[in-house]
Amino acid sequence: MPLHAKPAADAVRERGRGAHKGQQTRVAILEAALNLASHMGLEGLSIGALADTTGMSKSGVFAHFGSREELQISVIREYHERFEDEVFRPAVRQPRGLPRLRAMFENWVGKVTTEIDSGCIYISGAVEFDDRPGPVRDALASMVLLWHGALGRAIRMAVDLGQLRADTDPMQMLFEIHGLILSLHHDARFLRSDGAQGRARKAFERVIQFYEPGTPATTFGTVAPVGAALV
Amino acid sequence: MPLHAKPAADAVRERGRGAHKGQQTRVAILEAALNLASHMGLEGLSIGALADTTGMSKSGVFAHFGSREELQISVIREYHERFEDEVFRPAVRQPRGLPRLRAMFENWVGKVTTEIDSGCIYISGAVEFDDRPGPVRDALASMVLLWHGALGRAIRMAVDLGQLRADTDPMQMLFEIHGLILSLHHDARFLRSDGAQGRARKAFERVIQFYEPGTPATTFGTVAPVGAALV
Repeated sequence: MPLHAKPAADAVRERGRGAHKGQQTRVAILEAALNLASHMGLEGLSIGALADTTGMSKSGVFAHFGSREELQISVIREYHERFEDEVFRPAVRQPRGLPRLRAMFENWVGKVTTEIDSGCIYISGAVEFDDRPGPVRDALASMVLLWHGALGRAIRMAVDLGQLRADTDPMQMLFEIHGLILSLHHDARFLRSDGAQGRARKAFERVIQFYEPGTPATTFGTVAPVGAALV
Repeated sequence: MPLHAKPAADAVRERGRGAHKGQQTRVAILEAALNLASHMGLEGLSIGALADTTGMSKSGVFAHFGSREELQISVIREYHERFEDEVFRPAVRQPRGLPRLRAMFENWVGKVTTEIDSGCIYISGAVEFDDRPGPVRDALASMVLLWHGALGRAIRMAVDLGQLRADTDPMQMLFEIHGLILSLHHDARFLRSDGAQGRARKAFERVIQFYEPGTPATTFGTVAPVGAALV
């Protein structure tokens, strides 16, 4: 029986197999792209460089990702899914409130630590795209904001449960926690200094401690006015 | 009198004028290079792009900076000198200890704030060169370490003066303060979110407060072991 005269079931199976193979190829390209972007930055991604890395033709890569921009956005989405799998999902299995917030932070530290030799696409992407408006920047910012949103919710739950003071400003606490991760990434990856993980963890516990109920009155109301130190 | 027969004094004056003009050209190229690097990153710098920006020939730019690498390192040095002028020097005119440390932080916040539309070469450079060994990375790291050293000394002076607790770990405090600047840069420049300066200042005062004498016993000794939150 010639191929073109295959019974319907066979044809469907064949199409399915083709789609499956296409999907596998796409996954392989995306894996190579993620690896390339981790080392070279999202701006280091190109259809040509990926073709070289994967041993495919440029047109072969192009068939899966119609443009460099589409490729960059697909890499951001793939990174985000892995970030969710490694950092977010194991944490939400922890009880609400502080245990969950602590697990989110600890998994985040773990993720940055495993990335010391490759780099975090969120952090490097933020620097690469901070003044390049467009869909890549938007995709990156929306992923970062999703993660900030999840952290903010964990903080608010801890407040609702009475584990953190009622006057805790989640945005303020988030700002401080994010700074610890950025400092960890900078020191461990750029300066290659030892002990950055320990410093991040110590500072995180101190941040928690500050926002816990029973902490003595703060000087928040008496912060020196801007520039006061200079006069 | 033909030019080649100029008296010695005239020739010297002429050479001086030439050197002065050469110096002016170098300064103008460096200014353009710094501006380009602030927006495009140090990796965005090239002799060609600079020739376009300055309206000079490539060989004209090349005569002042013999290679792209030399150009990148000159830009880092120039940035560092400006950073010293704007952040470090006005602060060391403040009394030793906390007033000086506060002025360093406040001037640093001011510098990052004026750079919201251009970007900090230290921060973007750290991400660009974190896995590219070589003289550019080394120049960048040594400038960052100089600044860390200055901050570390200011913290130690505050300890010596009894303004901060004797058991203050300057490296730990530095890690936390640097994180606030990185968080400010990220939120103000990448996310374009309002209020990041205020959050940085509030958190800085809280860090100071934590290390001040008379702060109640900390939980430093009882920080949860690694991964404890996950079990």
